[in-house]
Amino acid sequence: MVNVGIIGGAGYTAGELLRILIWHPQAHINFVQSTSHRGHPISDVHRDLLDETNLMFSEADFQAIDVLFICSGHGKTKLFLEENVLPANVKIIDLSTDFRPRTNGNGFVYGLPEINKEKIERADKIANPGCFATCIELGLLPLAKENKLKEEVHVNAITGSTGAGQNPTSTSHFSWKNNNVSVYKAFTHQHLAEITETVLQLQPNFNKSINFIPVRGNFSRGIMATIYTDCDWSVEEAIEKYKSYYKNHPFVSITNIVPDVKQVVNTNKCVLYLEKHGSKLMIISVIDNLLKGASGQAVQNMNLLFGMPEILGLGLKPIGF
Amino acid sequence: MVNVGIIGGAGYTAGELLRILIWHPQAHINFVQSTSHRGHPISDVHRDLLDETNLMFSEADFQAIDVLFICSGHGKTKLFLEENVLPANVKIIDLSTDFRPRTNGNGFVYGLPEINKEKIERADKIANPGCFATCIELGLLPLAKENKLKEEVHVNAITGSTGAGQNPTSTSHFSWKNNNVSVYKAFTHQHLAEITETVLQLQPNFNKSINFIPVRGNFSRGIMATIYTDCDWSVEEAIEKYKSYYKNHPFVSITNIVPDVKQVVNTNKCVLYLEKHGSKLMIISVIDNLLKGASGQAVQNMNLLFGMPEILGLGLKPIGF
Amino acid sequence: MVNVGIIGGAGYTAGELLRILIWHPQAHINFVQSTSHRGHPISDVHRDLLDETNLMFSEADFQAIDVLFICSGHGKTKLFLEENVLPANVKIIDLSTDFRPRTNGNGFVYGLPEINKEKIERADKIANPGCFATCIELGLLPLAKENKLKEEVHVNAITGSTGAGQNPTSTSHFSWKNNNVSVYKAFTHQHLAEITETVLQLQPNFNKSINFIPVRGNFSRGIMATIYTDCDWSVEEAIEKYKSYYKNHPFVSITNIVPDVKQVVNTNKCVLYLEKHGSKLMIISVIDNLLKGASGQAVQNMNLLFGMPEILGLGLKPIGF
Amino acid sequence: MVNVGIIGGAGYTAGELLRILIWHPQAHINFVQSTSHRGHPISDVHRDLLDETNLMFSEADFQAIDVLFICSGHGKTKLFLEENVLPANVKIIDLSTDFRPRTNGNGFVYGLPEINKEKIERADKIANPGCFATCIELGLLPLAKENKLKEEVHVNAITGSTGAGQNPTSTSHFSWKNNNVSVYKAFTHQHLAEITETVLQLQPNFNKSINFIPVRGNFSRGIMATIYTDCDWSVEEAIEKYKSYYKNHPFVSITNIVPDVKQVVNTNKCVLYLEKHGSKLMIISVIDNLLKGASGQAVQNMNLLFGMPEILGLGLKPIGF
Repeated sequence: MVNVGIIGGAGYTAGELLRILIWHPQAHINFVQSTSHRGHPISDVHRDLLDETNLMFSEADFQAIDVLFICSGHGKTKLFLEENVLPANVKIIDLSTDFRPRTNGNGFVYGLPEINKEKIERADKIANPGCFATCIELGLLPLAKENKLKEEVHVNAITGSTGAGQNPTSTSHFSWKNNNVSVYKAFTHQHLAEITETVLQLQPNFNKSINFIPVRGNFSRGIMATIYTDCDWSVEEAIEKYKSYYKNHPFVSITNIVPDVKQVVNTNKCVLYLEKHGSKLMIISVIDNLLKGASGQAVQNMNLLFGMPEILGLGLKPIGF
Repeated sequence: MVNVGIIGGAGYTAGELLRILIWHPQAHINFVQSTSHRGHPISDVHRDLLDETNLMFSEADFQAIDVLFICSGHGKTKLFLEENVLPANVKIIDLSTDFRPRTNGNGFVYGLPEINKEKIERADKIANPGCFATCIELGLLPLAKENKLKEEVHVNAITGSTGAGQNPTSTSHFSWKNNNVSVYKAFTHQHLAEITETVLQLQPNFNKSINFIPVRGNFSRGIMATIYTDCDWSVEEAIEKYKSYYKNHPFVSITNIVPDVKQVVNTNKCVLYLEKHGSKLMIISVIDNLLKGASGQAVQNMNLLFGMPEILGLGLKPIGF
Repeated sequence: MVNVGIIGGAGYTAGELLRILIWHPQAHINFVQSTSHRGHPISDVHRDLLDETNLMFSEADFQAIDVLFICSGHGKTKLFLEENVLPANVKIIDLSTDFRPRTNGNGFVYGLPEINKEKIERADKIANPGCFATCIELGLLPLAKENKLKEEVHVNAITGSTGAGQNPTSTSHFSWKNNNVSVYKAFTHQHLAEITETVLQLQPNFNKSINFIPVRGNFSRGIMATIYTDCDWSVEEAIEKYKSYYKNHPFVSITNIVPDVKQVVNTNKCVLYLEKHGSKLMIISVIDNLLKGASGQAVQNMNLLFGMPEILGLGLKPIGF
Repeated sequence: MVNVGIIGGAGYTAGELLRILIWHPQAHINFVQSTSHRGHPISDVHRDLLDETNLMFSEADFQAIDVLFICSGHGKTKLFLEENVLPANVKIIDLSTDFRPRTNGNGFVYGLPEINKEKIERADKIANPGCFATCIELGLLPLAKENKLKEEVHVNAITGSTGAGQNPTSTSHFSWKNNNVSVYKAFTHQHLAEITETVLQLQPNFNKSINFIPVRGNFSRGIMATIYTDCDWSVEEAIEKYKSYYKNHPFVSITNIVPDVKQVVNTNKCVLYLEKHGSKLMIISVIDNLLKGASGQAVQNMNLLFGMPEILGLGLKPIGF
């Protein structure tokens, strides 16, 4: 049994962690820390957990745990680690962006099991990938592995609203967002560096731009990335390479039917689909931004950190509709 | 040409007023006051008005206008009128709740043309009705007129999100509200008093309760109220009475097909539908909460105040889908 | 291990059964019958099951199973049972309306565990309740148990689109239904008889009408029923009675915060909430129409039929957002 | 007054035409033909027109009209014109794809006023552009005009569900489409040829591919196209060129705030927005697919055909929310 603590327990990603860990057969939740809600039942905030747990938000107790999930928000993990000394044996899974950049020898392993599984199994600290980054990287890894990224990569990715967190703002307002879509941070999204680093890990000579246009979708969960680039593989070759790359990765599937976002919502899966048009290889990649794009992947990393089956506790019922 | 001023120009109801008045053949907008946005183009806030107007948010100039629409929010109109002296000839249409209670001789006429048309035509100050109130009252007026409200009245009404205004809150957050419905203020909604007063105007002996359950719908615009009560009319009689009551009221229609909310979205219409089951007469009433439930009705009142055709500028294209 | 067969495997309820049973620790799916899709992978139809199963739609093999789920659609179970002879040991869980009426001694037990748990444990054939019926009955059972239904019961219930099945029609068309709500079958819905029979089982002297207005909601999953009737309990008494009634029923929770539909979506839970206004007790009841309202309850019944823990395989991650 | 006839009156585009023409000050609707609904009120099908018209679906009477709108569906206009002889003076506006290809000297003028205004003013027959085509072409015209399309053009465009028409199918089913997005016809959409022809009209040397990925959005109305290509203009130059190109075109606006789809829903407007990133010029173009993308543009063409102001009857209230 793995003893778990959660920092920043009132946010979206902590809620998703709790929804998974409550039913995880080898996890025991020791504490869920929240400054703002301390002393209140966690089901007052995450109301769908009513009667599934009687945990209260509390202070952290680092002595009691084997692993700490940090869900504090971008920029706050660094601060947290400066202000707190954890016991040496406590492993860390950080869901923020703080330690994703790999250039600075920060001791964190980038927690994308589909590229770093062995490293993760031996690691103590995991920087859990971003949601857009996960979705797009899984679409590109087999190409990078084979040194096939020779030209610009074109990416349009539409995300559910939960990707923007729970803070209410003008662009999270239902009256505005309902039935509406819009572009934001085109060509400049902060996940671009993360994606490029991951590609370079497999294909160090990659030197073209990734033209990435993020879109705010009018749905709650999920990301669909549509990617294309020049590639001399036939579609059959590409499918074979992708299947081969992912054959030991239980959460990535290759489909031969055009996928849709809801096919993966409420699961830890990534579904990939390939088409060829002229010289262009098109890859469609869909994930649930809160699961494979955040908390589900965090649990996948926990399973690997502690030598458990990668899929333990992650056999989640899809939403379907 | 009627010269118009608007107070509180950045909110939802002011935006709707502007969308109507810009194309109104007999209205000229003199100023749109907003404390928070003064000096900025109104199309920076109401972005769909880009290139349809070059008006800027400004201070008020009461000397220049014939009518003032007050869109400041509930409780603020009283304050405004205490702090400002308007020229005697300036008529007022207030969209807040402040002057809707009729018991206190406040000089405001309740601006529901389907019960008070003649009074409105002679009035100087209009208290524009609430959105739920309008929808439900239009469903009850013919019954009250004929003294038929003898038993409890049961009302369930579901509203679009714009009814709650533009302030971002946890219950206006897209991630929560999307695909979600919930009850609020059951049996205690503030429009109940307004509805009861209107019913009593036509049927002073009404002394039963109106059991009103408001529901937050996961759509932006519209209200559907489902109403039933005991009534000894046959459905044919009821339809005849309703048609007769509304024959001189151009915005109320009686349909013989079960209506849906989108049938009236983006119009100033109210569509009513009647069924009889045992002793119960059921009335379904649908309106657009921002138009017949707010700004459209305000323009309808303006038309009546200035002796113009009631429908002028209100021939609006429905959304359809 | 319970060997399972499914008839009518291509529909919504069969899909939900499969999503649950694939991860159920004591269920083995022997066949999924479908006339229209025989020979194709079930993940071609239920695409979110890609790589979670390699089952194909096939013919039925009644010798191989312990329990048969019939998902064929209303009216077809009777026909099926006339045309097929099942081995004596095969238990049946029927998801259609065909055997829900209890007046005719048809050998089926009405599969609402919260009223019939012991009967279900000893049964061979289960008539799985309707979705509206489940949601409304769970709101009424504690009142009926205490003989408290003395006056008319008022019910407004809004349902997700999946309640209407997968056949594409004008009222299931996205362009129409999106952002739209409408009433259907007011006072005449076919579940009324089912609800009344269940109430009479606990309170045989109940002789008032249940005024039931069903509403088509613009969301995919979930039902929210708002119910009220005269009752002399205080709200505290009512809450105590409800908690007491449901204390051995793991899927029913009493909340003290107004619930919303998404709180239970993708779970087998029913959440109940109580308020008192004057003489009226109001009950809000929310369920997922495809789970507690159909396939989740069917699995709950299977668990009871075979002496397994009631919640086995039903620890489902809620959708949350 | 222009006398109007409509063929194929029961579909989405005919409904939109009617919603506009009923309030058009210089249009009189003589007949609305529909084979399937002949003899029924048009408000039985287009229910939001209840009490706004008492027109019935009828047979066509070509002698009575000045202009015929053909809304029959793709492939049927050719058939219609083979089977019917129209009086010489009757002008035609065809909303299908049948006569959009311009290579065959078919006598139809491509009805995009922003490139062909003078031709349209002198024309008798108009091929009304496609919705995706309109949205994307308006984003490209100023570049083509200045001979600036030198490299591949990358286009991702997401459309509302009404673009797929009213026939209910599995991909128009609310339960599937709600909260869902998916790609279709990537790189092969039938509007590509139309777009390329229009670009070539202004820049005959254009010989690169337009990589076009259409996406099904989970909203009813609107298209957002995101376009980018290499261009040596600065963003300031680009904005100036675009403003200059469209200065005499009242329905095209250039915004300096990232636009969203709802900004134009229920209007005939196209809003364009420009950004520059490295060598890439990005253009975002939003329209309402049923208005500027179909029926609104058809009325705009009617206005030009008959020498009326281009915006007559097209001062439509935006939906806003």
